[in-house]
Formats: sequence, structure tokens, C-alpha cells
Amino acid sequence: MNEGDFKKPDWQPESGGKEFAARIVKGESQAKAQKYSSSENSSENSNFSPEKIVEGVQNGNRALLARAITLVESNSLKHRAIAKQILNKLLPYSGNSLRIGITGMPGAGKSTLIETLGLSLIKQGHKVAVLAVDPSSKISGGSILGDKTRMEKLSGEENCFVRPSPTGGTLGGVARKTRESITVLEAAGYDTILIETVGVGQSETEVRSMVDFFLLVLIPGAGDELQGIKKGIMELTDCILINKAEGENLQAAELSKKEYESAVHYLRPYTKGWTPKVITTSALTGKGIDQLWKIIKEFETVTKSSGVFYENRKLQALAWTKKIIEDGLLEIFYKDPHIREKYDILREKILSGKILPTSAAEELLELFLSKRK
Amino acid sequence: MNEGDFKKPDWQPESGGKEFAARIVKGESQAKAQKYSSSENSSENSNFSPEKIVEGVQNGNRALLARAITLVESNSLKHRAIAKQILNKLLPYSGNSLRIGITGMPGAGKSTLIETLGLSLIKQGHKVAVLAVDPSSKISGGSILGDKTRMEKLSGEENCFVRPSPTGGTLGGVARKTRESITVLEAAGYDTILIETVGVGQSETEVRSMVDFFLLVLIPGAGDELQGIKKGIMELTDCILINKAEGENLQAAELSKKEYESAVHYLRPYTKGWTPKVITTSALTGKGIDQLWKIIKEFETVTKSSGVFYENRKLQALAWTKKIIEDGLLEIFYKDPHIREKYDILREKILSGKILPTSAAEELLELFLSKRK
Repeated sequence: MNEGDFKKPDWQPESGGKEFAARIVKGESQAKAQKYSSSENSSENSNFSPEKIVEGVQNGNRALLARAITLVESNSLKHRAIAKQILNKLLPYSGNSLRIGITGMPGAGKSTLIETLGLSLIKQGHKVAVLAVDPSSKISGGSILGDKTRMEKLSGEENCFVRPSPTGGTLGGVARKTRESITVLEAAGYDTILIETVGVGQSETEVRSMVDFFLLVLIPGAGDELQGIKKGIMELTDCILINKAEGENLQAAELSKKEYESAVHYLRPYTKGWTPKVITTSALTGKGIDQLWKIIKEFETVTKSSGVFYENRKLQALAWTKKIIEDGLLEIFYKDPHIREKYDILREKILSGKILPTSAAEELLELFLSKRK
Repeated sequence: MNEGDFKKPDWQPESGGKEFAARIVKGESQAKAQKYSSSENSSENSNFSPEKIVEGVQNGNRALLARAITLVESNSLKHRAIAKQILNKLLPYSGNSLRIGITGMPGAGKSTLIETLGLSLIKQGHKVAVLAVDPSSKISGGSILGDKTRMEKLSGEENCFVRPSPTGGTLGGVARKTRESITVLEAAGYDTILIETVGVGQSETEVRSMVDFFLLVLIPGAGDELQGIKKGIMELTDCILINKAEGENLQAAELSKKEYESAVHYLRPYTKGWTPKVITTSALTGKGIDQLWKIIKEFETVTKSSGVFYENRKLQALAWTKKIIEDGLLEIFYKDPHIREKYDILREKILSGKILPTSAAEELLELFLSKRK
């Protein structure tokens, strides 16, 4: 496959270079793709040599890093097979980053915050990657990080890698791609990974289960705003940040802070041994950004010394495994034509109160089991 | 099986009659139990004739009602088979009750509340059943409704049926038994079913998914108490009740009410179109009990006219079916000796970062699929 087989997604600025590390790859029919075995490595694929990409990723070659992530994000079976080889080779070098999830309503100023925080971290010598999980994003636009005017300074930095949300597919698919991108980026030496999410569907829960620290970005306002934010998100946070605490918002921000501090007490802390902090910032002026980083580092120190940090990572890895197994099993089950036929009949019977759910489920499971060796 | 094969559980009062509708049934070896097919109906089992029990349940025969529930709660495969026949026959006559879940810490006064509410409802002509879901309960004692001194008046009433929590087994098993008992009780004409739960594990979530209306019982006190209640429960409630609003507690109760009313605003309402209400009551003096019932009836009117009531019931039935299927599939998967062997190896590799969760899960699913026809 040649460079010419790639197309720029249309949300990229005309002048955009490698910092917009996404390309549109032509799809392939499943039949054709299945011809490729995971070990195949013909000369036709020399551009994709896993060894070359792995080496490039570890040596800081941005183009090859971008290519590795493109492969991880690809829906082509051929690319998936190559991505798997790359991931397995990079896995031993991954894990050494702080993974930070950032959520909040559109307009809360997440991008400005990420840009301000990211630039400050790069100045301190960090390598920062920015990913996004937005199951609603489409190549044709609407991707939260596809906005042409956003994160301009940050994406121009040598030590920063900005990647829009992988597009298409289910939330589970998007989450899988993001998790695997984290592995690649960590192996490439990125020590701080910021993962942005929008309040769509279950994307926050997905992101929460792949990060160490989870930040909720809000804007100041009276009590009514509280109801504007998606209920349930607060229970996932390690820190609530009232952004836009500037100018005439200042007083409202302090008031909001007090309200959220009180609200936090009603919630069960997500991270063992850590009470969520509430702070005010102004991403625009930079006020409070240092404090945010101090809190994140304090979180890291506290949870690493208690072991909760490592415990959470292990639990996340096992929970993820179990999740993929569960999803896979359910897919196998509900895609089985015999099951589908019977399920449709039983579903109607359940809804009209003609059969007990217990009995219906037992019948279906028996049918499923009868198909096993 | 003769009446002599039954034993009274030791938490029953010596003088306890049929109102404590539980008996200890001798266990049976699986091998022996499997001899019984679900259609078998030998003379040995004449006491258990499903037809006789179904007839008795519908005619208000308390002894046969108790027997039906004993069969539903039994872990014996023989009893399960008979219970299934009974349930399928009763199913068309079930569904016509208000199912009310009641949760709260021990000491909040749930029993007194249930007794006061139950007696008042019976006076108004209702038939009231009281069930419990307490996965920690044991025949040997500790069952929340096994307490000899509790609900004495209520359990003596003709139009009331009090049943302690089914014992033993997993929470899932206890929940299954309770759901099936609801079917039996509804077919027996009980129009109000109160289901008590204690704040243990996930029992509230289980109860929430089988009731129409969910009530959280709290006691008055300063803000600190808020942290004493299990976080997350508030999100499940349709009504928060501050009990023991009497004597010197009165002022504290009103204060608590205000606090919870404010707290409710931070939460996503569980039932569509219904904002959780907060009230103060004194189960001891009866104050507020009428108001509670008014709220429950208002809830019924609002949700029935919007259709949310029926929609929830349907969703509950389908969700329950899917839950049993999911649990069943996972059980089939993780009990498979080939899977177990491989899982143990892969688990260690995941925890030591030697394999990606995606790859491990895929390997296991492939192994599972290879065993299918």
C-alpha cells in the first residue's frame, strides 16, 4: 500500500501536517481481508513491516507512531492483524504514564484547559499525548477534537501528540482503539496521556475504566447548573474543576465550588483513599492550572504509596478482559440463528406475560448448550 | 413427602402458626433429585400436586400458598420442577399489585414502618404481602424478618402474608426466589407487596429491579449521617422517608428533610417523569404514613397514565431475562475446564503485563467457540 492510498480526513486544516495523525484508509471486503493471516508479511506490505514500525515508535519517529495508531484504529482485518503484532511487541514498554480522563459539557472549556495544561507540562519536560473518546464523531465532522481552530499551539509542539477520536463503530470499539493507542503512546515515551470525552452515552464510564485520574470540568453558575450536568458523572471523578473562574464569573465560581464541595460528601469516592477535590481555574489566564497539576501529582503519590494506583490498573486490565469476554459471549449467543429465532418468540411471550423470564432464559440456555460438543 | 418431613426454622416463635410460612426441607443429593422429571407426578407426590396447590393459591388457602412459596424457594431440583409447573399456571393471574421496595440501615425503623403501613392498608381493604431480600440471612438466625419480636400484629392479620428472606445461595438466587414469590402472591390476590432489603452488597439494586416504587428509610440527624447511608442508594429511590420524626427528633428531622431535598437535585431521578419526594414520618405514632401512601398512589397514577409504569415492568422482565442469560453464559464459560485452565495462565500474563487483555480475551473466546458444533 502506498502513501497515495491515504486520504486526509476533511476536518484537517489544509495546512495540517503530521500533528493531525489521521488518514482515511480505503475499506476492504471482509472476504479479501480474511486472506491475510496474522503472520503474513509479504513484500506488498513492506510499508507496514511491524518491526519497522515498532522500532520507529520507540525511536520517537512521529510518522511511524502515527502509522501505528492508524493501524490500531483501522477496521480492516488486515490492519488489525498487523496492529496485534505491533501491540504485542510494544506491550513490555508500556504502562509508564499518568492516564488522565477529562470530561465535561461542550462549552466548559476542556480544549483550552487541555491546551494550557499540556503546554505547561511540555515546558516542564513532559511528553504529552491527547486522545479523545467520542462515539458520536464522524469523519465528516463533529469530532470534538476535529475542530480546526482548537489546540493549535499544543498540536504544534514537538513533544505533544494530538489525536482525534477514532471514528465509527460502537463505543466499545472506540474504547478498544483508545486503550490500544495508550499502549503505543506509552511505549513511545509519552508520560502524560490526556483523554477527553464528551457527555455522550456511556463514554465517561468507558474512559473512567481506562484512566488513573478522572477530572470533571464544569462552569460556574447557580445551583441550577448542577442539574445541567449529566447525573452520575460526579460519582466517577477524582477532581471537580470549576473553569472560567475569571472576571465577573469569579464570585459565582467560588459559590459553585462550595456547592460541589458539599455535594461531593453525598457521593462515594471512586478511588479508594482519595476524597475528590474541588478547585476553580481559568484555563484562559492559566490561573489554577498549577494547582490542578499539584492535585494530580498528589493523587499519584497517595495512590502509588498505598498501592491503590497499581491495584486499580490490574483491576482495570482484568475488568477489561472480562468485559471483552462478556461482550463476545453475548455476541456469539445472540448472533446464533437458532437462538435468535427462539428469542424472538420468547420475547413476545415474556412481554405479554405468557412465560416467566426464568423459564424463557432457561430454554434459551439449554438450546445454546445443546450446540456444544 | 409428609408434613413430618418439615421442620420449623429456629427463628420462628414457639407459638408461631401458618403466618410464618417457612419450613426447613431436607436437602437431597443432586443424583437423586435428577431422577424426577418435571412432568412426573407419582402418588408419592400427591401432597405436592401442582393442580391442587394452584387451586389453593387462587382460593385463598394460606397453607397451600405457603407451600407454593416453599417450593419456589426450595433448592431441591425436584421441588424446582414442581414450582415451575405451578408458576406457569399462576403466571396469567399475576401482575396486579403495587410492588414496593423498602430499604434503609438497620435501626431506621423499617419493620415498624411496614407494620404501621401494612395494618393501615389492611384496614382499607387491601391484601398485603411482606417479603424480604437479605442475602446474609441464615436459617440459624440473623434474618432481618426472622426477628421474633417484629411485625407481630401484622403477621397475625388474615389479609397479610409475611415471609422472611429465602436463605442460602447467592444474591441472584435469593432474588430469583423473591421474584417468583411475587408471581405466586399476586395470583393469590395480594395487591400490595412490600419487599424489604438491608443495605448488604447489591441487594438494593436487585430489589430496585423488581419493584415499581422504591423507598429509602432514613433517620434524622445532622449532615454527617448522610455519609452513613450507603452511597448510591439515593439514586435508586422514588421517595426518601425520614423516620422517627417524633419528640426531640422533630427539628432534626425537618432539617434532614431539607438537606435531602437539596441532595435529590444532584441525582438523576430513577423513574422517568417522577422527582423523588422527601417526607418525614413517625412509624411509632403513625404520623406521615397516610402521606406516604398518598405519594405512592400519586406515583402509581402519574406513571400509569404516562405509561412509564407498564414500560418499566416490561423492561424489568426483559432485563431479568437477559440477566439470567448473561449469568448462565458466564457460568457455562468459566466452568468449562479447558477455559479455566487457559484463563488461569492468561490471567497471570495480563497481570504481569505480558499479554494485552484484548488478545487474552480473543484467545479464550476462540477456544470456547472451537467447542461448538
